[in-house]
Formats: sequence, C-alpha cells, structure tokens
Amino acid sequence: MENEDGYLPFVHQMSQISGIAAITIASEYLSTSREGKGVLFGAVTGITPAELIIIGAGTAAEFAARVALGLGIMVKVFDSSVDELCHLEERLGRKVYTSVFYPRVLKKALLSADVVIGAMPFNATPRFRVTEDLVKTMKEGSVIIDLNISQGGCFETSRLTNLNQPVFREYGVIHYCVPNIPSLVARTASISMSNILIPKLLSIGDAGGVDHYIKVSGGFRKGVYLFHGILTNRDIGHHFNLPSKDIDLLLAAF
Amino acid sequence: MENEDGYLPFVHQMSQISGIAAITIASEYLSTSREGKGVLFGAVTGITPAELIIIGAGTAAEFAARVALGLGIMVKVFDSSVDELCHLEERLGRKVYTSVFYPRVLKKALLSADVVIGAMPFNATPRFRVTEDLVKTMKEGSVIIDLNISQGGCFETSRLTNLNQPVFREYGVIHYCVPNIPSLVARTASISMSNILIPKLLSIGDAGGVDHYIKVSGGFRKGVYLFHGILTNRDIGHHFNLPSKDIDLLLAAF
Amino acid sequence: MENEDGYLPFVHQMSQISGIAAITIASEYLSTSREGKGVLFGAVTGITPAELIIIGAGTAAEFAARVALGLGIMVKVFDSSVDELCHLEERLGRKVYTSVFYPRVLKKALLSADVVIGAMPFNATPRFRVTEDLVKTMKEGSVIIDLNISQGGCFETSRLTNLNQPVFREYGVIHYCVPNIPSLVARTASISMSNILIPKLLSIGDAGGVDHYIKVSGGFRKGVYLFHGILTNRDIGHHFNLPSKDIDLLLAAF
Amino acid sequence: MENEDGYLPFVHQMSQISGIAAITIASEYLSTSREGKGVLFGAVTGITPAELIIIGAGTAAEFAARVALGLGIMVKVFDSSVDELCHLEERLGRKVYTSVFYPRVLKKALLSADVVIGAMPFNATPRFRVTEDLVKTMKEGSVIIDLNISQGGCFETSRLTNLNQPVFREYGVIHYCVPNIPSLVARTASISMSNILIPKLLSIGDAGGVDHYIKVSGGFRKGVYLFHGILTNRDIGHHFNLPSKDIDLLLAAF
Amino acid sequence: MENEDGYLPFVHQMSQISGIAAITIASEYLSTSREGKGVLFGAVTGITPAELIIIGAGTAAEFAARVALGLGIMVKVFDSSVDELCHLEERLGRKVYTSVFYPRVLKKALLSADVVIGAMPFNATPRFRVTEDLVKTMKEGSVIIDLNISQGGCFETSRLTNLNQPVFREYGVIHYCVPNIPSLVARTASISMSNILIPKLLSIGDAGGVDHYIKVSGGFRKGVYLFHGILTNRDIGHHFNLPSKDIDLLLAAF
Amino acid sequence: MENEDGYLPFVHQMSQISGIAAITIASEYLSTSREGKGVLFGAVTGITPAELIIIGAGTAAEFAARVALGLGIMVKVFDSSVDELCHLEERLGRKVYTSVFYPRVLKKALLSADVVIGAMPFNATPRFRVTEDLVKTMKEGSVIIDLNISQGGCFETSRLTNLNQPVFREYGVIHYCVPNIPSLVARTASISMSNILIPKLLSIGDAGGVDHYIKVSGGFRKGVYLFHGILTNRDIGHHFNLPSKDIDLLLAAF
Repeated sequence: MENEDGYLPFVHQMSQISGIAAITIASEYLSTSREGKGVLFGAVTGITPAELIIIGAGTAAEFAARVALGLGIMVKVFDSSVDELCHLEERLGRKVYTSVFYPRVLKKALLSADVVIGAMPFNATPRFRVTEDLVKTMKEGSVIIDLNISQGGCFETSRLTNLNQPVFREYGVIHYCVPNIPSLVARTASISMSNILIPKLLSIGDAGGVDHYIKVSGGFRKGVYLFHGILTNRDIGHHFNLPSKDIDLLLAAF
Repeated sequence: MENEDGYLPFVHQMSQISGIAAITIASEYLSTSREGKGVLFGAVTGITPAELIIIGAGTAAEFAARVALGLGIMVKVFDSSVDELCHLEERLGRKVYTSVFYPRVLKKALLSADVVIGAMPFNATPRFRVTEDLVKTMKEGSVIIDLNISQGGCFETSRLTNLNQPVFREYGVIHYCVPNIPSLVARTASISMSNILIPKLLSIGDAGGVDHYIKVSGGFRKGVYLFHGILTNRDIGHHFNLPSKDIDLLLAAF
Repeated sequence: MENEDGYLPFVHQMSQISGIAAITIASEYLSTSREGKGVLFGAVTGITPAELIIIGAGTAAEFAARVALGLGIMVKVFDSSVDELCHLEERLGRKVYTSVFYPRVLKKALLSADVVIGAMPFNATPRFRVTEDLVKTMKEGSVIIDLNISQGGCFETSRLTNLNQPVFREYGVIHYCVPNIPSLVARTASISMSNILIPKLLSIGDAGGVDHYIKVSGGFRKGVYLFHGILTNRDIGHHFNLPSKDIDLLLAAF
Repeated sequence: MENEDGYLPFVHQMSQISGIAAITIASEYLSTSREGKGVLFGAVTGITPAELIIIGAGTAAEFAARVALGLGIMVKVFDSSVDELCHLEERLGRKVYTSVFYPRVLKKALLSADVVIGAMPFNATPRFRVTEDLVKTMKEGSVIIDLNISQGGCFETSRLTNLNQPVFREYGVIHYCVPNIPSLVARTASISMSNILIPKLLSIGDAGGVDHYIKVSGGFRKGVYLFHGILTNRDIGHHFNLPSKDIDLLLAAF
Repeated sequence: MENEDGYLPFVHQMSQISGIAAITIASEYLSTSREGKGVLFGAVTGITPAELIIIGAGTAAEFAARVALGLGIMVKVFDSSVDELCHLEERLGRKVYTSVFYPRVLKKALLSADVVIGAMPFNATPRFRVTEDLVKTMKEGSVIIDLNISQGGCFETSRLTNLNQPVFREYGVIHYCVPNIPSLVARTASISMSNILIPKLLSIGDAGGVDHYIKVSGGFRKGVYLFHGILTNRDIGHHFNLPSKDIDLLLAAF
Repeated sequence: MENEDGYLPFVHQMSQISGIAAITIASEYLSTSREGKGVLFGAVTGITPAELIIIGAGTAAEFAARVALGLGIMVKVFDSSVDELCHLEERLGRKVYTSVFYPRVLKKALLSADVVIGAMPFNATPRFRVTEDLVKTMKEGSVIIDLNISQGGCFETSRLTNLNQPVFREYGVIHYCVPNIPSLVARTASISMSNILIPKLLSIGDAGGVDHYIKVSGGFRKGVYLFHGILTNRDIGHHFNLPSKDIDLLLAAF
C-alpha cells in the first residue's frame, strides 16, 4: 500500500519499531543474559564506547541510530547513496559518521564493531550484501541483526530464524535473523497498524465503498492482494503457483 | 572507598552501568521475548509513548533517564529533594518531568507507568519505599526494576532474586530484583573497575606502599575491610558475627 | 496566494506568529493577571509541569510546540495523520508525545490539560473538532486557544471573540477565540507580510506588469480577489451576495 | 533560610518562577494587548529577532534565558563576574552572548534591546545599576522588568509598583517593577514552597522538635524571624524600629 | 550533472567543503598569523562574540553556519527568500538570526560584522550583490570570503584571486576570492567526488554503456560537455568561440 | 592568581582561547595552504570524518572538543582520571568517546588520528606524555598541537617553537609547539585579561589598597611575583638564580 506520493506507511511504521527493537535485542545478546560476551551496549565514562555499524540509511536505520546515539554508542552508517546519507543526517538533526561502501573503510569498521545491523530500505536496489569473508573478520561474540532477512538478507551468512530459536552462531558471530521483529511488541505494532488503517477506512467510507476507492486511489490499489475472490498479486501467485490477474484490467472490466 | 571529596568512584561507575542496563532489561520484559505484554519501550510516531518512573535522582537515575529520553520514552523522576532534582536536570542538560514525593502525584503516575526503576542513591536517608498498596494499582504486565535491592529495596513488594531466576510476578507486576546487574556485562564492569583501581595502585606505589597510603588517604581507609589479617569493617563483622576492630585505632598502634 | 509548489507563504508566516503568541496568551490567562487560576505555564523543578495539548500538526502547532518545549511544558500533539506527525517531529528535531485521534487517549489527555490549542492546518479536511462533552471534562480554569476560529473552530464550544473582549468562560474553561491574533503584534506581522510581498512585486515588475504576472503565475492568480474592478473570489461573492466571475475565464477574454 | 552549603532554596525556587514569568510578562507589554508597540517577543523566519538583555547571571537569569532561547530571541547576558557567566553557560548547556559590564558594550546593546530584565542574584555585591542616562537611550516602547526591585532595583529609573498598577512609562520605556511576581502564579508558587518546607518539617520532627532543630541546623537558624516571641531578625527590627535579639545568644541561654 | 529531481550532487558536496573551509580561512585572516587584526573567531565567556554574516541560505551557508554556531559565533543569515531561510533553519535544526535583504538591516549588521561570507546558491537569480558603499562601512581588518566569485562575485569589490595570492585589501577589508577552495583539501574533495561518480559509473555499466545512459538519464545528459568529439555545452562554446551542438539533437540523430 | 576556591581565572580564560585556536590551527596545517596533506578537518557526508585525539580533560580540552564536535569531527578524549572525564562530559552536555590511558587503546587511536592536541590541565601531576614510539606510528602528515609546551610538553618529540617558525616535522608528523597561542588573537586575549583584572582592581580599591588586599586575599597573594621590590616567586628566583623571599613571611613583618 502506498500513499499518493509513493510513501509506504506500513513499512515506515514497522521500520520504526524494528529499528528501536534492534538496539535492545543487540544489548541482550551482548550481555551474559543470552550467553553473550558480557559487554554493555552503551557508554560508561572512561571506557571505549561500544561500536555499531548500520548498513542502509532508511527509516529503520534512522530509529536505530537515534537510540544508539542516546546510549552514547559510536555509530557508523554505510549506504551506497550520498543523498540518502544526507537525508538521514537531516532527520537525525546532527552529523554522524557516514560513509559510502568503500571496501577498505567498511572492512576496517567491521574489525572493531560490536554490533552490525542490516537495515537497507525495503525497496533498495541493487541490494548491498556484506560478504562471508567480511563476517569472518568480525570479533568473537559480536552480534549481527539482519532486518533485511525477508528480502533475502543483508549478510551472506544470514539464514532465516524464528522467535523460538532466534539466533545461530557463524564464525563466532551471533546472527539474529527473525523476519517479524515487530511481533515481539505485538500490542504496539497492532496499534501502529490501526493508526494507518482507520483513517484509510474512513476515507473508503467517504468515497462510497471499497470498490470505488480501489479505482480512485492508485496507491491503495497497489496493496490489494485479492479482488472479488480473484488473486491480484503476481508475486504471491508465482510463489504458490496460482493464477493471478492484473487489477487494472479487472477494474476496467468491472 | 571514597575520593578526598566524598565521591564514591566505584559506586558511581557501577551506577552508570546499572542505569543503562535497567532500560534494556525493562525492554526485554515488556516484549514477548520474556513473556511480557508485547509493548515497545520506546516511541513510535502516532502512539502514546511508553512511560517510565524513576525513584531517586542520583547517577543510576541520570543514566537511565538519558537513555530513556533517547528512546522517546516519557520520563518522570521523583525524589525527596528539590536540590537533587535540580542537579539531575543540570547533568542531563535539559528539563524533565520532576516531582517530589507527593502521594497523590506519585499515585497518578504509577497508574499509567509501564516501567518503574528504583534508583535511590546508595547512601540516601531516609530511604523512600513504594508501598504495597501503590504497587497493586499498577498495570498488569508492567515492570519494576529495583536497583536498591541490596540496600533493602525501593518497593515493599521487592524480594531478592538472582541471574538464574531474575524475576517474579506480584499483583501482575514483573519484579526484577537482581542485586549484581553489572555482572551481566562483566567485561565492561571489570574494565570500569580497573580504570579506578589502576591509578589508585600507582598512587599507592608512589606513596611508599599500601600501609602508608591507608594512613594518609582517609577516603581509601574507608574502603579497607581487612588490615594485616584483622577485620576492620563493622557491618561485615556484625553480619557474620565476627570480631572487628576500628582501623583508626589499629593504625595509631601500628 | 500560493507558491508554485502549493506552499502558502502568508498563511505560513501568520501561523508562525499565531503559534508563538498562543503560548504567551495562554500564560497570561493561567496567571492571575487575567483572573486565571494562578498556574505557571512552564516547569519549575520538583513540580509536575504544566500540560499542553495541541490539536493539529502544521506550522502553528510546530511553533507553539517549540516554545512550549523550551518552557519545559509537557506537550502532547494530536493529528489524524501519522505522516503529518512524523513531519512535525522532523521539523522540531526531536521526538515528542504524538497520537492520532483515539477517543480514549484524547479524553485522558484532556482531563489533565492546562491549555489546549486548536491548530489544525488551514486547509485540513475533514476538520477534527473537540466535542462539547470533552470540553466539559476539562479542569476548572484551564484555557482553550482556538486558532481555527476563522475556519469554523476546532472546539464545539468555540464562538468568535475579538481583541476587546477576547475570552469567555464555558464549563469553567476559558475560551480565547480571537481570529486575528497576529494583529496583537502588528509591527512584526506587517514586516513579515512585506517580506513576502516585496520580492513578489519585484518579480511582477520583471514580468512586465501585474496583468501579465497573473497570467503566468497560477499560484498568484489564486490570491486575486478583484481583477479590473470585477470580483473574482467566489467565497466573498457568496458571503456578501455579490456577483463574481471566474478569473481564468476573464483572463482568457482579456 | 539556607541549606548546609549556603544554598538558599526558597530564593532559588522563586527565582525560577520569576525568570520564566518575566518573559511572558514582557511578551504581553510588547504586544498591543497592553498598549505596547505591537512586536512579537520571539523569532519569525526572515525578520530580525527580538533582543533581550539580562543583567545578572543567577537563577532567574538562567530561567529567563532558557525560555527566551526557546523563543528564538537574541539573548545577551551581562554580569560583573566572568566566573558567574561561565557557570550560567554550563547550566544552560550552550554558549550564549555574554559580556562583563563594559560601558561601551552595554550602551550599544541597550540601543537595540526590546526588553531588559534586571536579574542580579539576591545577594550580589556591589550591586550593578543601569543609569538613567542609559535608560534614556532605549527604544520607545521597549520594556524593563526589574526583578531586583525589592533589593533596591537594578535601574536608576525603577520605582516600586504593584499588581494592580504594575507599570509606568519613563523616557518612553515601560517599567514593570512588581516585587512579588510569583504571586501571579500563586498555586505554582505555593506548591513550590511546600516542596521545600515539607521535607524540612519532617526533618524537624525526626530531630525532636523545632527548638532542637534550630540549634543543630545553622542554615535553618538564619531563616528564623521570631523565636519564642522574640524578634530575631535585625533588618526587620531596624525597619519597624523594634528591638531584636541575636538568635545565637538566645539559644545559648535557652 | 543533475539527479532525477534536479539535485546537483557535485555542487552539493563542494558547497559542504567550501562552507566548512570558509570558517577556518576566516579564522586565519582574523588572527595575526596572516597579519590580521588579532581577533578570535569564536566565543570566550565574558567577551562580545565575533559576528558572522552569511549572504545566501544554500548548502555552503548551512555548513558555514553550523560550524560557526559550534564556535559560539553570532551568525546572521540574509537571503531574498523567506522559504529558503525556513529550509535552512530546518536543516540546522534550530532557530538562527535570519533576515531578508532589507537595506537598513543589512547595513546595520555589516557595521559590526567581523566576517562576511558570500554564499548565494549556485543557480540563484537574480543574484544579490553587496554594494561597494556597504563594503566601505565595514570595520578595518574585517574579512570577506566570496564563495560566489566564479559566478561573478557576491560583492562589488570582489576580484578573482588564487591560492598563491589569495587575498587583497580594499577599504581596509581583507577579501578572499579564491574560486577553487576545495582544492585546499584536495584529498577530501577527490574522495567526495568519487563517492558520487562511482555509483554513477556502476549505473552506466548496468545500463549498457555511456551512450545509452546519456539517452535515458536527462540529469546526466545536462553534465555532458563533449559527445563523440562534438562540443555540447553552449556556454563553453560561447566562451572559447567554438561551435557547439545541442545534445538532444545529436542523440536523436545517433 | 587564584580565586577563593582555588580557581585560576587567567589560566581558565587563556585555555578557552587556546582550545578554540588549536582547532583552526590544525585545519590550516591539514590543508595545503600550509603544505599539509590536503584533508578537511570536518565532516562531509559520505566520507569517514577526520579524527581528533585530545590528551587531557580540562578547559582547553573542553573548548577544543566543543568546536570539533560542531565540525562533525570524531573526538576521542584521554585522561588519567575518570572523574575529570565525567566533569568534561557534564560541561559539554553530551557523551563523547572518553578513555583512561590504556596503552593498547591509545595506540590504536593514534594510528588513525589526523590531529592530536596535548591539553593536560595546567597543574596536572603526574604529567602524562605520549612516547616517541607512539608518535612514530602516526600517519604521515598528521598534526600535533602541544598546548602543554610551556610546562614541558605532552609529547616526547615536542620542542619549543615560536610564531615565526611555528612548526617542524618529526617522523612525518607536523608539530606545532608555540607556547603563547593567545597572542595570535591578541585583541581578544587582552580584553579577556582585563575582564578579570578590572573587577579585581575595583576590589583592591574597595579594600583600601593593594598591600591590604594581598593580606586578606590568599588567592591573589599566590599571583604576586614582586612585593615592595623583593622577588617573592621561588620558581622565577630559581630560574634566574636570584634570591627570593616567602611572601607570607614578608607580610608578617610588614
């Protein structure tokens, strides 16, 4: 589902939640409460602060960075686009360590990182991936949180996990690759979703019903998976090997 | 152990760690990963932010408050002294919601709190305690973190727990009452301690040995538990029913 | 009058002024200097800070919020759109308490509010209104400032007032419903207007006169009320029962 | 009344209130609602911001400055002591325009000031006063708020006013010289006072009564005006031509 | 070269560098190390801070302003457009002194300025210029940095200089009019350029070669000076008196 | 000269100036304008920011750090005392990278530093020095500014320079070791000094002359070098091989 200006409200809200949650999950797995190496994910005066690398400069990155900066953590953000990095800094309201993907710079940063969060925006292309060779160089007991796991993962070493068995270790690095992090805070996530749905439903009512609204709102139309019992999402059709129809053609005939 | 100016360096560093850790522990127990109620301890645009009450205005309170403000949480700090609240705001560099212990104000705040942290300074007297009746009014699934548990607790419902079984529920409220929170981040805590000990040891070396240093440094003398095999800490002697001697008398005779 | 990108410069400037002025007007009516209840609209350490609710997330809301945050006031912003609330936080450069219009949340907030400012953006639709029932629940002596009074008001209890008799009491709540707040600071407002007009006039000069400029600038055309003696604003025509003509038709004939 | 460390809690709290209130009072008298010159005491983009001079760098100055900075006002603070100015900047958490009392610098600043607040700390000596000649140079319609009026005033042109007739004009400058500004926000002021008194009364109870507490607490003793019916404050005795006794002597005899 | 949305990435990066460098260059020429008048370009408590005027509200202005505010300098930004000034404040995340070009206001500001930076955005029209008469009123030893020198200069008294002989004095004012300031920090500037070029080159590769990319990317096409040996930039052709062809026509024929 | 509370006002003001100036001097020597390596001492989005190490956590360190943070530079502060580092963070109003002098941590930091400023407080003991071996590991073209040169230097490789020949290269590292940096901004420095002297002189006048004031003010007495023609500063006497007398003895006899 898209707003008129190409903005994806659900993705935006869920990215906020995932970004914030990523920091507290990382804290957990760095502490000994989850058999981590016993490091505080924060800054105590007189001790080198913990280091966080964020891959990507979208909404999840923004919210993770804001919390981490509040914790006094040293944050380094990498993205392929200088523009995106500029916009991130504007939204954060301060300068942070940013860099495009220079192999040498990223490699050096990974050597001393305590946590790396994969947070490429939902629809980024081409998708950057941290190679297996780079993961090998990371410190024993460091933590990877892959928020891109449902789009194929941001690390070559990532593989899907779930909330019952959320992590695995690979090359000594703890990998957290749960795709549905917002379900950890299900109450908050569901309020967040209805914040977007309810005004939308009211608009549908004002517009004279859902069929009509699908016609007039191109953004809403993109979020339709089923229309009068007919599958309209090609990706899902492909995945389950089901026939699907183009919604624009259906609407024209309607 | 005290500095010349009555400042307690170990307590100060451990309070920093406990204050930061309290926030991430609370996040864990509000999420469903620890069977909590599934609430994000942070702020997502458009949703009433989570609420945190901090009892006390010392170092642990300061560090917990700073992280919570970074998360966008609504923070309310209660203390018996207006002066302490002023100093807290100066150290945080911004105004926060502060209040002295008005029963009516505290009661109203507890009704909507998601997390309450007991963080009275180490040597505060008389120690304030949240009554059992007030704890009863708190929301189902809300979280209490009692950082004062080793000094008797900041809540009437608190009882000592440990890292293996860190929480219990009482009146539907999750109580986290582990006394040695810094051991969750043992590496950070041990570096933090040696940051204080090493310069001290160097000073002892410069001063011509530990016996001499105990004589000249009144603050250090307060931290001595055993002197030439003789117990010098009255509280420990009392606790284990062992004879103890006053270190000043011992030194005079030495 | 509109800029090329739909931006309304006059409205924007006047909203800045109204937003700032709303806070100092509210201070006046909370203090006893205007027979208010004698409450400081600000934060003194150790006392529950005053609470402000802002309805709407546009420019006036932004400027009122910024000043209120500087005063240490607890600010809660309600709007129907999560997107607008996000943009507000970006412009403020910090997280604030934001919420969409959940009846339960708004009701609870109104119960403890000291001041409520109606600040829906100029062209918001559908316009949200605080019901009479909700106003009844507000505290004795609390203050409503309705910046939307010239567009019909943001509260069901609002009725137009003027600078000579700016307030009335309804259900114990002081209502300030003066439509032309910027005229309180007439010097500032007039400088602000000429800041926008003068560059516009220079452009008109460069463009070869006002008739030509009206043709080429669609945004400017929207601000034309009279064209060669003929009324071109339908709303004014309707209001005064005068005939009006469409400016586009006039220009075509010109 | 003093704390053990020479800190004056009542003065401190009342100074916070006066500092905040001074800004909103100034706003009122710059606007036309009190027949002022119609200037916004704040900053609208594109217009030279209003200018505020604060004389003194104590608590009232700090709170006035913080609110004014939040309004976007250009703030200039003058004090005789560089140390006090440093401490002010530390408490504000940012650099501001500060200057010692260079006649040339102060004169230039007064020429363009919209508001001048006299806010010398309670016990500053020697007290600085702005001369009549300097007041003459100020702009027509500018506003003086003299928070030092009860200690003799910070401006040669000041004379005591009251809440019924709070201002007078001298050389075209509006003078607001009400000594008891906190009574404008009487509710807030009384809560603020009991915040200090109640813990004190509890301490008195713990200490075994007020007579005993007066003996042991030197700071509290300084706040005693009457002891067992005998006047103990020399200044009041002098003022009303009444005999007074030294409290220390009384206590010794008690 | 333009992005799809009219954004000029090279100009943007070079403006960041020039804006930052302008502040340190100004510091140099105010100090005696370059025979300046011996004034600190920064703020020491108790001394009137140095004053900086920035002409223009684009990227260079933003970066110069941010550094100057960090130094505690009093910053005044002038631009012809209120909108641009608003956007600048949003990007800086705080209110600053802003004004449109009122002759009286600018004149007064120039009288007390220590440094004036000409930083009109690259493509601003009509370009504002500070007149010779205004430059004459500036203080002896004050410094002008003209970042617009390659587009004709922002001051009537500017004339092109170079890195070997970077300044001249006119009416006692030091003029720094070097067009290629980024070459002072050549390493940083070249990394900055490749940050933009490398992703572009990768896109060109993906798009099937440069000829094809020139066809599909209108923004990139604007940056082409030579196409298959034929000059395509009219301005350069005009300057060197060489024939040039329109690239769109060439491509159509290709 | 000391204030009553051991505070050194001259040292404090000169340290502010030196701290600010150190950053702009470093910028100069990193750029090619002084034959440096052509690196911007600041942060451009998308490029690894420049790195600054500050040795010491006093006033000069504070002011250098504040400016550097404003430039977006990555700042790392080392000191022997955790307490001093805490106070620094309080004065800066934010968390920064701080560390005690762990050899391994300092060594790693020096490897990537662009600038190192020696800024141990005036009277720090024992004075920490960066060894020659560590300086050897620094990057070609990096810059050392030794603000401690007049107390023996903070680097083993430092040797006194002057304003005519301010730098030398050792192991490829540019060393700036001018003891009297404030004289670069002589006007500012002299105003700063008179800010302290003038109130002092007024106090001396009020106290009935300088002889009397020397008697009553212990802090002022410490700043006396000559008393009635007799040298009273032992260090100077030692240096020039002149007899000196203790001022307390002289005063007793006076």
